[in-house]
Amino acid sequence: VKIFPFDKVPAQEYAGMQGVTIRWVMGANVDAPTAYMRVIEVEPGHATGYHEHHWEHQAFVLKGQGAVRQGEERTPIYEGTCVYIKPNEIHQFINTGDSVLRFICVIPKPEDD
Amino acid sequence: VKIFPFDKVPAQEYAGMQGVTIRWVMGANVDAPTAYMRVIEVEPGHATGYHEHHWEHQAFVLKGQGAVRQGEERTPIYEGTCVYIKPNEIHQFINTGDSVLRFICVIPKPEDD
Repeated sequence: VKIFPFDKVPAQEYAGMQGVTIRWVMGANVDAPTAYMRVIEVEPGHATGYHEHHWEHQAFVLKGQGAVRQGEERTPIYEGTCVYIKPNEIHQFINTGDSVLRFICVIPKPEDD
Repeated sequence: VKIFPFDKVPAQEYAGMQGVTIRWVMGANVDAPTAYMRVIEVEPGHATGYHEHHWEHQAFVLKGQGAVRQGEERTPIYEGTCVYIKPNEIHQFINTGDSVLRFICVIPKPEDD
């Protein structure tokens, strides 16, 4: 059993995105065999990339106010919101508030890890 | 994309345990292919079973105060604590506070689902 505060894991730049950091809280560091859990933070006025990929996301909002964008549609998200993104669905997380938007994002273990 | 508050998913009894409920927030309901995310709540004075199984847990504490027990050892947990339990490690989540202990718990997709 490994027990630690999430913020003991260093926040890293995320794919060169401005105002976005990622902590790989339970992945290769604990040798997780199936899924990797990350904590992503988006600063006010920032957003993750509008993108798609062949793996799914299970996101859970911890803090802040934001929106998930698909095309012209924006759905508000806030503490306790679950966001399930299917494989190959285009998506973006936008911080629409004035404090950090923090969410958990679970993905399948990356194939190259 | 599916977006909903976690408490829109009904809280169910969990393996007959007193004072413990589970919400299967992102699993069969969204046809998740790899991992299932649950939200577990333990009432004050209660605990999950002291048990082991062949799949891993990735838990993230959302709220409350508790401890993870392994044998005689009890490690405190609180908001933001990550708990990684390897396959076949015996474990128990105990609420040691005076309000609900709420945590996310991710498991591999169950084989029979």
